[in-house]
Amino acid sequence: MSKPKVVLAFSGGLDTSFCVKYLAEDRGYEIYSVLVDTGGFSADELQTIEANAYALGVKKHATIVKTQSYYDDCIKYLIFGNVLKNNTYPLSVSAERMFQAVAVAEYAKEIGANAIAHGSTGAGNDQVRFDMAFRIIIPEAEIITPIRDLKLSREAEIEYLTKKGVGREWTKAAYSINKGLWGTSVGGKETLTSSQYLPEEAWPTQVTKSTPETISLEFVEGELKALNGKAYDTPVEVIQALTAIAQPFGIGRDIHVGDTIIGIKGRVGFEAAAPLIIIKAHHTLEKHVLSEQQLYWKEQLANSYGTMLHKGQFVEPVMRNIETFLTDTQAHVSGTVHVHLAPYRFHIEGIESPYDLMSAKFGSYGEMNNAWTGDDVRGFSKVASNQSMIYQQVTESAE
Amino acid sequence: MSKPKVVLAFSGGLDTSFCVKYLAEDRGYEIYSVLVDTGGFSADELQTIEANAYALGVKKHATIVKTQSYYDDCIKYLIFGNVLKNNTYPLSVSAERMFQAVAVAEYAKEIGANAIAHGSTGAGNDQVRFDMAFRIIIPEAEIITPIRDLKLSREAEIEYLTKKGVGREWTKAAYSINKGLWGTSVGGKETLTSSQYLPEEAWPTQVTKSTPETISLEFVEGELKALNGKAYDTPVEVIQALTAIAQPFGIGRDIHVGDTIIGIKGRVGFEAAAPLIIIKAHHTLEKHVLSEQQLYWKEQLANSYGTMLHKGQFVEPVMRNIETFLTDTQAHVSGTVHVHLAPYRFHIEGIESPYDLMSAKFGSYGEMNNAWTGDDVRGFSKVASNQSMIYQQVTESAE
Amino acid sequence: MSKPKVVLAFSGGLDTSFCVKYLAEDRGYEIYSVLVDTGGFSADELQTIEANAYALGVKKHATIVKTQSYYDDCIKYLIFGNVLKNNTYPLSVSAERMFQAVAVAEYAKEIGANAIAHGSTGAGNDQVRFDMAFRIIIPEAEIITPIRDLKLSREAEIEYLTKKGVGREWTKAAYSINKGLWGTSVGGKETLTSSQYLPEEAWPTQVTKSTPETISLEFVEGELKALNGKAYDTPVEVIQALTAIAQPFGIGRDIHVGDTIIGIKGRVGFEAAAPLIIIKAHHTLEKHVLSEQQLYWKEQLANSYGTMLHKGQFVEPVMRNIETFLTDTQAHVSGTVHVHLAPYRFHIEGIESPYDLMSAKFGSYGEMNNAWTGDDVRGFSKVASNQSMIYQQVTESAE
Amino acid sequence: MSKPKVVLAFSGGLDTSFCVKYLAEDRGYEIYSVLVDTGGFSADELQTIEANAYALGVKKHATIVKTQSYYDDCIKYLIFGNVLKNNTYPLSVSAERMFQAVAVAEYAKEIGANAIAHGSTGAGNDQVRFDMAFRIIIPEAEIITPIRDLKLSREAEIEYLTKKGVGREWTKAAYSINKGLWGTSVGGKETLTSSQYLPEEAWPTQVTKSTPETISLEFVEGELKALNGKAYDTPVEVIQALTAIAQPFGIGRDIHVGDTIIGIKGRVGFEAAAPLIIIKAHHTLEKHVLSEQQLYWKEQLANSYGTMLHKGQFVEPVMRNIETFLTDTQAHVSGTVHVHLAPYRFHIEGIESPYDLMSAKFGSYGEMNNAWTGDDVRGFSKVASNQSMIYQQVTESAE
Repeated sequence: MSKPKVVLAFSGGLDTSFCVKYLAEDRGYEIYSVLVDTGGFSADELQTIEANAYALGVKKHATIVKTQSYYDDCIKYLIFGNVLKNNTYPLSVSAERMFQAVAVAEYAKEIGANAIAHGSTGAGNDQVRFDMAFRIIIPEAEIITPIRDLKLSREAEIEYLTKKGVGREWTKAAYSINKGLWGTSVGGKETLTSSQYLPEEAWPTQVTKSTPETISLEFVEGELKALNGKAYDTPVEVIQALTAIAQPFGIGRDIHVGDTIIGIKGRVGFEAAAPLIIIKAHHTLEKHVLSEQQLYWKEQLANSYGTMLHKGQFVEPVMRNIETFLTDTQAHVSGTVHVHLAPYRFHIEGIESPYDLMSAKFGSYGEMNNAWTGDDVRGFSKVASNQSMIYQQVTESAE
Repeated sequence: MSKPKVVLAFSGGLDTSFCVKYLAEDRGYEIYSVLVDTGGFSADELQTIEANAYALGVKKHATIVKTQSYYDDCIKYLIFGNVLKNNTYPLSVSAERMFQAVAVAEYAKEIGANAIAHGSTGAGNDQVRFDMAFRIIIPEAEIITPIRDLKLSREAEIEYLTKKGVGREWTKAAYSINKGLWGTSVGGKETLTSSQYLPEEAWPTQVTKSTPETISLEFVEGELKALNGKAYDTPVEVIQALTAIAQPFGIGRDIHVGDTIIGIKGRVGFEAAAPLIIIKAHHTLEKHVLSEQQLYWKEQLANSYGTMLHKGQFVEPVMRNIETFLTDTQAHVSGTVHVHLAPYRFHIEGIESPYDLMSAKFGSYGEMNNAWTGDDVRGFSKVASNQSMIYQQVTESAE
Repeated sequence: MSKPKVVLAFSGGLDTSFCVKYLAEDRGYEIYSVLVDTGGFSADELQTIEANAYALGVKKHATIVKTQSYYDDCIKYLIFGNVLKNNTYPLSVSAERMFQAVAVAEYAKEIGANAIAHGSTGAGNDQVRFDMAFRIIIPEAEIITPIRDLKLSREAEIEYLTKKGVGREWTKAAYSINKGLWGTSVGGKETLTSSQYLPEEAWPTQVTKSTPETISLEFVEGELKALNGKAYDTPVEVIQALTAIAQPFGIGRDIHVGDTIIGIKGRVGFEAAAPLIIIKAHHTLEKHVLSEQQLYWKEQLANSYGTMLHKGQFVEPVMRNIETFLTDTQAHVSGTVHVHLAPYRFHIEGIESPYDLMSAKFGSYGEMNNAWTGDDVRGFSKVASNQSMIYQQVTESAE
Repeated sequence: MSKPKVVLAFSGGLDTSFCVKYLAEDRGYEIYSVLVDTGGFSADELQTIEANAYALGVKKHATIVKTQSYYDDCIKYLIFGNVLKNNTYPLSVSAERMFQAVAVAEYAKEIGANAIAHGSTGAGNDQVRFDMAFRIIIPEAEIITPIRDLKLSREAEIEYLTKKGVGREWTKAAYSINKGLWGTSVGGKETLTSSQYLPEEAWPTQVTKSTPETISLEFVEGELKALNGKAYDTPVEVIQALTAIAQPFGIGRDIHVGDTIIGIKGRVGFEAAAPLIIIKAHHTLEKHVLSEQQLYWKEQLANSYGTMLHKGQFVEPVMRNIETFLTDTQAHVSGTVHVHLAPYRFHIEGIESPYDLMSAKFGSYGEMNNAWTGDDVRGFSKVASNQSMIYQQVTESAE
């Protein structure tokens, strides 16, 4: 009789290496390890991880490259929506992990897995993202979470692996770092307190640029097409090129304090030069080309979109409706944005767009014009104050 | 027969000086000029303006000092609500002008004025704020707006005043600057375009500090009580002291692009070190001490509060209800926030508060704890994914 | 030299008849009268109105039949969005008038009119709807509003027309009635007070049916396709057929109290059997087939859509984005709804749909099932109460 | 050594009777049974339940009468907020159960219980409400849920009780009925399907009145003070008196289809004449006395308040902030509402209030007035259409 198949979300670290051995030897599964690359791995890293997987004894290891669809199905909407969780955090890890969980579940469904496993502990957001994506997409498969269930210490895991003949060195970094296309998170030490900031040396990208420069970003219907006048094949490449230019300035560093899915408060450092620059540039362009009501409703929906993505609700049907809405708002979001970069900071210099509603043709703010008269505004003010005026009068006469 | 009384919102500039002469001599009014000081004038400036008013021939000039009530009735709620219009602008001028308009209207009501006048042109937001406050609070008085109605050029106004024997020099500054307790606005040249940023020399406060420093702000129930450990009598003084420390770093400069009340887009530069630092500090503290739902609803209501204030709707009855809500949320917003200041930028280092929900007693994010188990989270994920799972299954079987 | 062209929104009543004569003879215009039929006129009525127009001396009269596009571009979205202003009023007149104003403006643009006129008084919502549609769509044309500007009494208008040789009888009805595809409004006498309801005889459709009946409505992707099992070519016909069945029951009568665009409160009676039945039926179907989040965001956006439509903002760009969103949510809104009709009332009996999320396959509410266990719910409750539990503990220990 | 104490939410039914025996004899607890009366029990019923509790062997039975505080702490805000879940359901059971859960938890805390138990199954909303209230208010106590955990059939429970010498007859009603101050729910048979309505005989209150009558409700600051001109000591009594008058008309019957906390759809019948009449009367009064913005924000917050209450989040801190907001909006909600009652239906005839903003003093809707002119409205329309007009022009010239 053939062994049952388990698909394991595999990162190559201690926890998921333990899972391979445990699922194979203690639980009798045939292991299909899978790594979903959303732009955070080099070719070398991917190769090493694959080699390690086979060395641990997986039946098959799959590297699913999803960078482009990660952009198409997720980051694009975060840009359309100018999504910054709590006005701060571009959801660097939340988005990536959710997207990976969905890809793993789809892979498991495709190969007809009997079970599906992840190596998350019982302490964070990721476990919920994996659990939910797995349950929704492949509800027939059992979800196995060895690390969460067995609650082993690092030492116990290493001991187990050593016994099983896995002799790798497992070092624990001072900070836990997660690098991805949409930013890098940094957790540990200071972020476990409420009062301390990360020291200079904790940031994955050290500051190596000191001369300010001004760059331009070109958007076509909300999507990045060019950087400094150079067109790229896909927005993914623009994001990567912008990261290369801007991250060495130390731009986009901050600490996000937020509500985890499990109800406690969490704090995480991040560096995300490209996401923060792109979102502020895109948002500024929108302020010029969209109506006040479009800006208002975009913010409402995008805010909710970000929160649901963060909470593992990426597969909720309303998410697709919101994406449709956001896309529909981008028809005029085309133009060039000039951005000034300097160490640790940036600002938007200005924008150019054929759809700019600040067009001088219709009068400039603070300058008189021909589209309306002072009398028109007088009438506007009168009508716009009617209700409060009546309220005031009624109150006085009733009391 | 006695002349009719007009109350005139008087700033001492060309436009309102013209109004005095015009209202007195061409319209036959007795002029009660009034200046509402919300923290933007020195004693010298106030004296000069008063002298000029009398020199122009006003019957009476009143200087109404409202700095404390400007804070109590307005800025306080902008802080409670972390209000940044379009995620950028602390409403430096919007709030101040609205507040002044209300104070002028109340003064006119008090002295039983027959008319009430302001010197706004027909091109900006301020005219609407004055119009609305006047109409709501003292609807029985005629509203006179000579500058808007006569559409005179600067030159014509100067010529008129010269003829009337007013020999002052009227210089036009390169930028129009409005200085107040809650920030300084800068408009002109570049801000009339969409694409250009203000040059270094345009900023009212030049950058004179280069050595970073770390400061602490102490909040009690949402209000600023101390700076660097030193207690102040009122939050107004903390704002002033913080401005003195932080503005010379060039912190809090940006350009706001927004929707004016009259429907066109407008752009204005501003420097507002204290407002931006205070709001980010207060917001960070809130992220630690408030529940996710409190943060969500505060943002919804405060966003609307800022927009209504901006649009001249400060006297709308819902504004008082929102203030009550915001105040009610501040009971736990007490603690100290550490802020790092450097040229052109700042970041929040961290906070300390007895109400910090990140308290290690209940488990740290990413660390296991005793308040719940992995099984609890598994159950949570299952129940939380029920609806999407069912939706997915129903879709598959229906199609 | 040829006369300038004016397009006049013409209803055939006293006010617009006056406008024809006045614009032609006192203002020297060539009149292009236009009536936009959105389903409220019989062929006879249309013919009479046309004859009257020519008799008054218009150059050309156009009857633009827009019933289908009124449904396609407007009513459809009111159904998708379950729009009831203030939870009461289906926007019977608001929607129709706005839609007519847009059609008149487009016609004026098409024929290159120099001016565009409407006969609204200065007292209601309609003037704003016409003004706004005209200004946005054909800003180059002067807007002429004789009734509003001249403020003539009925008697003065009649005298003017009599002098000009127009000898028609102009009777003033006890109630002002506006009949349309999406309901009929009734204003006058009692609706001018706050305390009185309309008497039985004031309702345009008298109650002639007394035997309850049960009907079925079939929706396909949110649109009405069949009534009592009979398919119709277009939803317009279903609405008309349903009106014929349900209105004689006196269903859908109520008085709407609302905020007019000009800031005062207004009260208007309406009978709208079909709209109220359709909206409640559609909404009930949605409660079965959409997720909780879809229902929530639909309501938010549709609420705003209704308010903006009511306020003359139909041409605002965000309206198109909202329509796209609403359409996107309708993919699963297919099924049959059973409705019980009785004199003055109706209720929904139930629904059938292949997309029903209440599918017994996934467990019934209140019955145990296999999709989750009691332990799962226990875990869910624990995690879902974490934040409030921590808040409670922190509060106790801080105070 | 003394036995550990468990507080048990006791209703006297089969499930909680089983719990008493099970907790006492199989688990070794000393039982403190408690029944929280929120207005749904007669004195006789309460006595019988108490007698049964002692007969089953509880150490102590407590009847906590909380009708007044149920109104003060919960129903009052549902009225202030016009809360109808999904525009239909007054939360009759949700509110009551949540409130009872909190009261049980507070009692357990007071007597220092070691454990706290409820008899809910694993299939409904109530289990989550109990779980959450217990965990938040008395986190140190173990939560025991025998029915959910043991998954016994009715028969097995009866057999267990019989063995233990409890010889009562346990009949299963055709419908599960929950009667309370704020409405009665009816579940079973038809409500388990999507397509069927409840038959006449299933409704707890049969229709015995056929002659229409008109009643008046008097509100003072949002609270009910009198019915038909007769003042009552407390709003609770008005609710009870109104129920006596209106329920025999069969008013307020409907079926609610909604999202349960556990993610599935559920359907429940209810009769709630008083809640529906009161909410529509209160809401109509508010439409006359509150500003448009007050109505908008009340609806937003109250909608969320209802959802959170429904989902067991009554103890969330934001709920207190929302209550403060709602209370603050009620200052002007005073006046009399006339309501017409007839079999199966009612409508609001009209209102009278000193705070009525429809006051004729400021002009009637549709009638000209002195507060503004046609020119004012023309100016209003022009300014209000500026942005869409510019958008249109920019679009045309850009494309």
